[in-house]
Amino acid sequence: MLKLFYAPATCSLASHIALEEAGAEYEARRVDFSTAEQTKPDYLAVNPKARVPALVTDRGVITETPAILTYIAQAFPAAKLAPANDAFAFAQLQSFLNYLCSTVHIAHAHGRRGARWADDPAAHEAMKAKVASNMTACYELIESKMFEGPFVFGDSYSIADPYLFTVAGWIEPDGVDPARFPKIVDHRNRMTARPAVARVLAMLKV
Amino acid sequence: MLKLFYAPATCSLASHIALEEAGAEYEARRVDFSTAEQTKPDYLAVNPKARVPALVTDRGVITETPAILTYIAQAFPAAKLAPANDAFAFAQLQSFLNYLCSTVHIAHAHGRRGARWADDPAAHEAMKAKVASNMTACYELIESKMFEGPFVFGDSYSIADPYLFTVAGWIEPDGVDPARFPKIVDHRNRMTARPAVARVLAMLKV
Ligand SMILES: N[C@@H](CCC(=O)N[C@@H](CS)C(=O)NCC(=O)O)C(=O)O
Ligand SMILES: N[C@@H](CCC(=O)N[C@@H](CS)C(=O)NCC(=O)O)C(=O)O
Repeated sequence: MLKLFYAPATCSLASHIALEEAGAEYEARRVDFSTAEQTKPDYLAVNPKARVPALVTDRGVITETPAILTYIAQAFPAAKLAPANDAFAFAQLQSFLNYLCSTVHIAHAHGRRGARWADDPAAHEAMKAKVASNMTACYELIESKMFEGPFVFGDSYSIADPYLFTVAGWIEPDGVDPARFPKIVDHRNRMTARPAVARVLAMLKV
Repeated sequence: MLKLFYAPATCSLASHIALEEAGAEYEARRVDFSTAEQTKPDYLAVNPKARVPALVTDRGVITETPAILTYIAQAFPAAKLAPANDAFAFAQLQSFLNYLCSTVHIAHAHGRRGARWADDPAAHEAMKAKVASNMTACYELIESKMFEGPFVFGDSYSIADPYLFTVAGWIEPDGVDPARFPKIVDHRNRMTARPAVARVLAMLKV
């Protein structure tokens, strides 16, 4: 059975929702950030990068959100979570996932995880000060150039949607004005109403 | 015909090599960073992210290195640059590409592009000071846990190889000791001898 290592209020939410949408049988195993469990030997044996998410399969562990999402889509093709047999459409999907992972998530992480990239506490403050404007620029690009509606890729729900939903949860915490992004906020509201999303959110609240 | 927007000595090298390995017909179009061409309206119409690489296809533009590499592999299946019909192997490949894009490339970018994440010049210096140790940690994980040899994924050459080759070119510029990474350096040497790689490197020297 698949096993997802996750932590509440992190990017692992996207993979969690995708598993529910796919109708996968899986176990969700919480990693306790309050005791830095992600840095302890037992977890490093699962994911030496000391991060969530990690998806354990019968053939080995998969890390990196875009790779996990793509695996879920391909392992459960009946759920139609990614385009099949269309290299261009598949590349557009990957491009969206990669942008969220390598630019948007990174811009967000500078607000809490500045110690990854500098030792000086003053530098961490300087990074924090730029998070809202960087995230605003990212959401602007998504809202104006990437989001087709009603889902990220038009009428087809895909693995891009739970990832955008996850990233859209950072709007208010990162000091960004939600009123500037009506399409992203409307998508977020509609996502919350999906049964798969509601099940995951209820589970995380326990 | 495909058209690759690239700049010398950047991550676009990976996509450039992959096009040669695939035997694709393509035009390579240099973006002049010395005049900040990537930020001008003509280029923003191609890629509003103001970055290279961007691959123009007859159906539209693809951005993000992992997405471009995956597109090339899927559009030229005869070159066997990615596993087909094996969701787990494909996910491992995506995971490798995503790690290079979202962690290694980002660690590297903090040495030159600190202005993306902070306005204070002292913060840029603090970021620069941490590049060598962060990059060393990244190469260590690749050398010890990810690289199978002789190629990234064992005997099968894939799109992971030109991307690792590109990232391995940052070892010395980022102040990392190459002697600590014999497998990565040996891979880099063998890559340089491949005809497709040699053709791209010769073209970039002009
Ligand atoms: N590129 C990775 C990033 C994973 C990541 O940064 N996860 C964060 C939570 S959102 C984490 O585990 N942080 C723990 C830490 O930094 O100690 C992905 O997209 O999966
Ligand atoms: N996530 C993107 C990153 C692209 C990127 O950062 N490209 C750099 C060159 S390696 C660039 O165009 N920089 C120009 C600038 O920052 O002005 C990818 O993997 O393709």
